[in-house]
Amino acid sequence: AYSTKDESAARPVGRYPVPNKKDMPYDIVELMEEVEMKTGFLPNVFKAMSHRPAEFRAFFAYYNAIMNKDTGRLSKADKELIIVATSVVNRCPYCVVAHGALHRIYSKQPALADQVIVNWKLADLSDRDLAMLEFALAVCRADNITEEHFQKLERHGFDREDAWDIGMISAFFAMSNRIAHYIDLRPNKEFYTMGRMP
Amino acid sequence: AYSTKDESAARPVGRYPVPNKKDMPYDIVELMEEVEMKTGFLPNVFKAMSHRPAEFRAFFAYYNAIMNKDTGRLSKADKELIIVATSVVNRCPYCVVAHGALHRIYSKQPALADQVIVNWKLADLSDRDLAMLEFALAVCRADNITEEHFQKLERHGFDREDAWDIGMISAFFAMSNRIAHYIDLRPNKEFYTMGRMP
Amino acid sequence: AYSTKDESAARPVGRYPVPNKKDMPYDIVELMEEVEMKTGFLPNVFKAMSHRPAEFRAFFAYYNAIMNKDTGRLSKADKELIIVATSVVNRCPYCVVAHGALHRIYSKQPALADQVIVNWKLADLSDRDLAMLEFALAVCRADNITEEHFQKLERHGFDREDAWDIGMISAFFAMSNRIAHYIDLRPNKEFYTMGRMP
Amino acid sequence: AYSTKDESAARPVGRYPVPNKKDMPYDIVELMEEVEMKTGFLPNVFKAMSHRPAEFRAFFAYYNAIMNKDTGRLSKADKELIIVATSVVNRCPYCVVAHGALHRIYSKQPALADQVIVNWKLADLSDRDLAMLEFALAVCRADNITEEHFQKLERHGFDREDAWDIGMISAFFAMSNRIAHYIDLRPNKEFYTMGRMP
Amino acid sequence: AYSTKDESAARPVGRYPVPNKKDMPYDIVELMEEVEMKTGFLPNVFKAMSHRPAEFRAFFAYYNAIMNKDTGRLSKADKELIIVATSVVNRCPYCVVAHGALHRIYSKQPALADQVIVNWKLADLSDRDLAMLEFALAVCRADNITEEHFQKLERHGFDREDAWDIGMISAFFAMSNRIAHYIDLRPNKEFYTMGRMP
Amino acid sequence: AYSTKDESAARPVGRYPVPNKKDMPYDIVELMEEVEMKTGFLPNVFKAMSHRPAEFRAFFAYYNAIMNKDTGRLSKADKELIIVATSVVNRCPYCVVAHGALHRIYSKQPALADQVIVNWKLADLSDRDLAMLEFALAVCRADNITEEHFQKLERHGFDREDAWDIGMISAFFAMSNRIAHYIDLRPNKEFYTMGRMP
Repeated sequence: AYSTKDESAARPVGRYPVPNKKDMPYDIVELMEEVEMKTGFLPNVFKAMSHRPAEFRAFFAYYNAIMNKDTGRLSKADKELIIVATSVVNRCPYCVVAHGALHRIYSKQPALADQVIVNWKLADLSDRDLAMLEFALAVCRADNITEEHFQKLERHGFDREDAWDIGMISAFFAMSNRIAHYIDLRPNKEFYTMGRMP
Repeated sequence: AYSTKDESAARPVGRYPVPNKKDMPYDIVELMEEVEMKTGFLPNVFKAMSHRPAEFRAFFAYYNAIMNKDTGRLSKADKELIIVATSVVNRCPYCVVAHGALHRIYSKQPALADQVIVNWKLADLSDRDLAMLEFALAVCRADNITEEHFQKLERHGFDREDAWDIGMISAFFAMSNRIAHYIDLRPNKEFYTMGRMP
Repeated sequence: AYSTKDESAARPVGRYPVPNKKDMPYDIVELMEEVEMKTGFLPNVFKAMSHRPAEFRAFFAYYNAIMNKDTGRLSKADKELIIVATSVVNRCPYCVVAHGALHRIYSKQPALADQVIVNWKLADLSDRDLAMLEFALAVCRADNITEEHFQKLERHGFDREDAWDIGMISAFFAMSNRIAHYIDLRPNKEFYTMGRMP
Repeated sequence: AYSTKDESAARPVGRYPVPNKKDMPYDIVELMEEVEMKTGFLPNVFKAMSHRPAEFRAFFAYYNAIMNKDTGRLSKADKELIIVATSVVNRCPYCVVAHGALHRIYSKQPALADQVIVNWKLADLSDRDLAMLEFALAVCRADNITEEHFQKLERHGFDREDAWDIGMISAFFAMSNRIAHYIDLRPNKEFYTMGRMP
Repeated sequence: AYSTKDESAARPVGRYPVPNKKDMPYDIVELMEEVEMKTGFLPNVFKAMSHRPAEFRAFFAYYNAIMNKDTGRLSKADKELIIVATSVVNRCPYCVVAHGALHRIYSKQPALADQVIVNWKLADLSDRDLAMLEFALAVCRADNITEEHFQKLERHGFDREDAWDIGMISAFFAMSNRIAHYIDLRPNKEFYTMGRMP
Repeated sequence: AYSTKDESAARPVGRYPVPNKKDMPYDIVELMEEVEMKTGFLPNVFKAMSHRPAEFRAFFAYYNAIMNKDTGRLSKADKELIIVATSVVNRCPYCVVAHGALHRIYSKQPALADQVIVNWKLADLSDRDLAMLEFALAVCRADNITEEHFQKLERHGFDREDAWDIGMISAFFAMSNRIAHYIDLRPNKEFYTMGRMP
């Protein structure tokens, strides 16, 4: 590992070595197997992060706390749309491709993520979704966030707890995009075609 | 709470309400008391994040995994310098002021953080420290990270595990800076003067 | 027409009215029917441009002169890749989606255009293709083009006639992207899924 | 040719070779002679484009369709002003100098183009002309063009057909500026002084 | 001199040689001694500028005309705040550190300059002070200054003579910041700690 | 005055009132008359600055110290070229037009300033002049100025005293451009045509 050159048959998931399963802590193996069962394959982010077990645990605990919480007005498709729109700004191949796929699955709209990737303001989005992305992108750019930002969200039915959720997902993926860049994390092939056909 | 207008005697720590200690989960209270004991006061980030206990736990577990690990070549002062240099890019009042103070404490150099805040390339830094900040800032800007980036670090004695450490701190604070913006998190007064006098 | 609001069942192809076939000049109808026959549907750019017959003729004569010429080292897939990479810079929904589809068809690589859309420098491209896109993007940004640009191309086997071809395609789509923006031209649905499956 | 170094007595018109008249197709020679007769000299763009006869024909057919049409509210001076204002953004020596000269000729205002070149918003322009340039520059930057853009034009008497005309000229010169950059096209000396004296 | 490398015990004040006092014109020595008496040490800008006596005289005469005039609504602290906020934009170590210190002295607010350095819009400033800095920063960026800029100032009690004062200080330090960059002017150590403690 | 609206027959020289000659201090009247005698008309900057006599004196003393000094390798034409190239960056109508005219007069090259205004890197300049402008523009942008900047100048025959001269002119006009913006200073009509004809 530590290299991105051997892009042969088995392109590595990134720049850092991935330990053998038998050398991984049990809780990490367990989580990986659960995800692989559910998804049908193991997304590369799990392999790449297993290089650092303590950070693996913190990363996925955080991910779980914000992506799998039951409260708030954000649907699973909303959350994936936020990730796609903000990860495009950071030109992150893994996050755009993987979460574009998840958006297609959850939203059942096969073209919307592709539209958002090119030009979110011209995508076929409701005013509510545009307001959601506008807030997410302001956080993504590390803009000063003012009362007007919150009021604009409120006009589209998002309260301040929803604002926190939108902001936190944008902030978490500001981190993830940057980790993916230095790890040189690349998407699994499966993501490119998932959810494209009705 | 939810407001930044009542900046009276007791300026709130941010835009979201902070629960009363008696309503907080016990593990959060315990961590807060430990930090307050050690620091002499409770940094506002603990108060602000307690609004969301699950995210509080994930955030500080992550912080702990990267800031308090024993391995690698980054000193405590190095880590704080990375935080200062990258948080300035995102114009984050809390992170620049609080971690500028921590840098003064750990480095015993009372003027260096102030120099880095204005213009890191002109600060009185060694070539090693400049290389460290250059990598951290490339991650901060979400640049594509190439083999050249790693080789440049290696010329100054940082191996790829150190590169991960630098990158992860930069990435984690890319997240923290953005959270601080939507929370409107402000530094405790104590930070402004800590470590200024020899 | 003149509106983008009625996005009902039959979303208009753009902001300007499209004449009825019976009111169109015969040569335009003829070209449209030929294209529809070949492609299986009529790409929206033909409908939108028919609003101005003289400009329709000039636009497609120009397109034909540069895209369907037999000389030079650019394959059909190369040309589509240039269009995708430069149209992303201008955030042009029509050109990115339509020419991404054409790239998948000509290159038989179903994921490459998606990679270029997110981050061309990290896409699975040969050094030759990277050099080709680097020149195309310099023209796209209206950079000063110097001898070094040409020499870099030459090192990857492109002579100065190829450079003209790359530059002209980039320049022509600099125009097309901007026309698409004021027309509010949107891609036909068929483009999103074309060429995705092997 | 292929070089910009021999800037001796007879600086070449650009980086690509210009064929001898006797080797040029007859229609191209004919157009050149007509232009030279009318203008008093042959603008370099004709020489440079003759390197590619098919593209020469398409380029000037397009130019003719948009610059010499009789309909719409744009005067000849308006069109030249749009070209000057947008070509400055792309720092195109040929287009700024040549069309600055044509603007002086058509408008009979010897200083206005020079003002627009430095700072169009501070130039001695009517509100109508400022609105025209604002739209042209939005197209030039490849901004998303919204209903507000059209409404702003309407408030100054431009309908949507005029908007198309403004947008198309801006888009066509977005192409021309980029061609001029890779050709290294330079203005004929005559243009610098044309129309400066009343 | 002419070097920034010998950063030993006695770091030079900049890149250019400083003449010995005995070789300086008498009026320059006199001004230096007066300043040193008043401040307790001689700020490096006096040493650095003495390399060019005629420019020294013009620079400090100008400085004196705008910083020490008695008319207008700008307090000494206001003027220093303008210098801090604009010099941060130009990343000027000398001006930010020296005038941050002077601001602390005049305003008796030990934290405000530090806040403005990180993010002036989030600093604990009155609406009046925000309006003052907004105008100063528009001048700093060389924005076109319109009637709206003046009217905004008027709503906060600044008339057009005050606008001139704000603009002139911003413009003068646009010059000073750039001189400091090519001279490599660095702040005296004393400035870092001045005025920090109540 | 205080207005830019009455652009009638006698467009004011700027936004601030110009005192009557009889109310001006004698030394200012004297300087104005001397300049008017020499130039044939009174450049508007003299009128505009007379609104503030103390600043008038400091401004022109400074201007004189750097523009009319006898030492160094910069010719009068060199100095005007620096002013033109840097004032274009700040889009300053007065400085570009007035100093473009002075450059034509001193250099006897009627087209060169116009070329520099559009694209200095493509202008017909010697390598020496390009190096001079490159340094001036680095200062103009408030870049960090490093040893490499000085060494590059040295390779073209400029020593460090010349570097100071180039830097100081660039810095002084960084100030002048910004003053011109808030004063809304406009060029005298005479400047547009001066020196255009051989």
